[in-house]
Amino acid sequence: MPKSVELFFDVGSPYSYLAATQIERIAERSGATVAWKPMVLGAVFKATENDMPARCPAKARYMLADLARFAALYGVPFKMSSRFPVNGLRAGRLVVAAGAPESVGALVLALFRAVWVDDRDPSDPAVLADVANGVGLDGAALVGAIDDAAVKDALRANTDDAIARGVFGAPSFFVGDQLFWGNDRLDFVERALHEG
Amino acid sequence: MPKSVELFFDVGSPYSYLAATQIERIAERSGATVAWKPMVLGAVFKATENDMPARCPAKARYMLADLARFAALYGVPFKMSSRFPVNGLRAGRLVVAAGAPESVGALVLALFRAVWVDDRDPSDPAVLADVANGVGLDGAALVGAIDDAAVKDALRANTDDAIARGVFGAPSFFVGDQLFWGNDRLDFVERALHEG
Repeated sequence: MPKSVELFFDVGSPYSYLAATQIERIAERSGATVAWKPMVLGAVFKATENDMPARCPAKARYMLADLARFAALYGVPFKMSSRFPVNGLRAGRLVVAAGAPESVGALVLALFRAVWVDDRDPSDPAVLADVANGVGLDGAALVGAIDDAAVKDALRANTDDAIARGVFGAPSFFVGDQLFWGNDRLDFVERALHEG
Repeated sequence: MPKSVELFFDVGSPYSYLAATQIERIAERSGATVAWKPMVLGAVFKATENDMPARCPAKARYMLADLARFAALYGVPFKMSSRFPVNGLRAGRLVVAAGAPESVGALVLALFRAVWVDDRDPSDPAVLADVANGVGLDGAALVGAIDDAAVKDALRANTDDAIARGVFGAPSFFVGDQLFWGNDRLDFVERALHEG
């Protein structure tokens, strides 16, 4: 069995974007693969009685500084979305429609960049199609699939799976059955991959 | 001006304990001093409409694993308190009564150990006196002072100062006017001290 790290994310989560920019390099260093698992963060919050961090105004202000610090540390661009909170539901369905969790990294990273660098709206089908086209996929076909029952069900199944395994926020990682929450736990994720 | 890092904490906060075990070494590496600033975390949560993380059951379960991971990383003992949430109010007053923020490190660390290693009750005056005696202070005199108006006011002033400067949780650090929140931001604190 090759090693794997599962990344549960919502395209609307800025810390998920930051983690996504790093996880492939981290996985590679351990000879591991990344399984990209979109989920619906709003449904996770509701099921776990958790809240989005930005609900607390002082925390929301702090987050802007904190996100900028991590972006500088990683050397990646970051621009706060003008439409926060961002609805990542359709983008999650697009990822599910695009293929197996191990095969959709380029699409996921392009979606994150669209939202957290270029301030585009991931609930706009035209944006989704354009982003998919940009990574060599058939944007029109994928956008045409996001209302399919099978696609909706698959995204819901990812979300239910995450909740059942203890997830309450994003990004969340699994190395085997070990859960790690937050972009700021990537060091622990890497340690678990080395040990695994 | 010698460099300084302010640590706003509540003895009832387990992540504050973890951070406290590391902050003096981090400060020393930058030739900086630590200003230990007790505050009342419950009052901070109330003023900022924030919530204790453990209010979300899934997050509370995860926190146990996360706290154990950091304790192992740091090589420090940790035992979850049997009385969580822990009321750190009297311990905060004791620290304020004991002297200037730069002079109370040994007492603060002993209080944290009493709660987060030895599972003692920091709302029990006998425990507080014993812990103070153990670091060479006059426990009886300090415990006798914790209901003084000046002591209560000083702890309240710390709390109000923290809230006014953007604090919404514990531990929180200031390097100059830069706020850092969480045991997991110690790397950023150290970087700010080196740059400062």
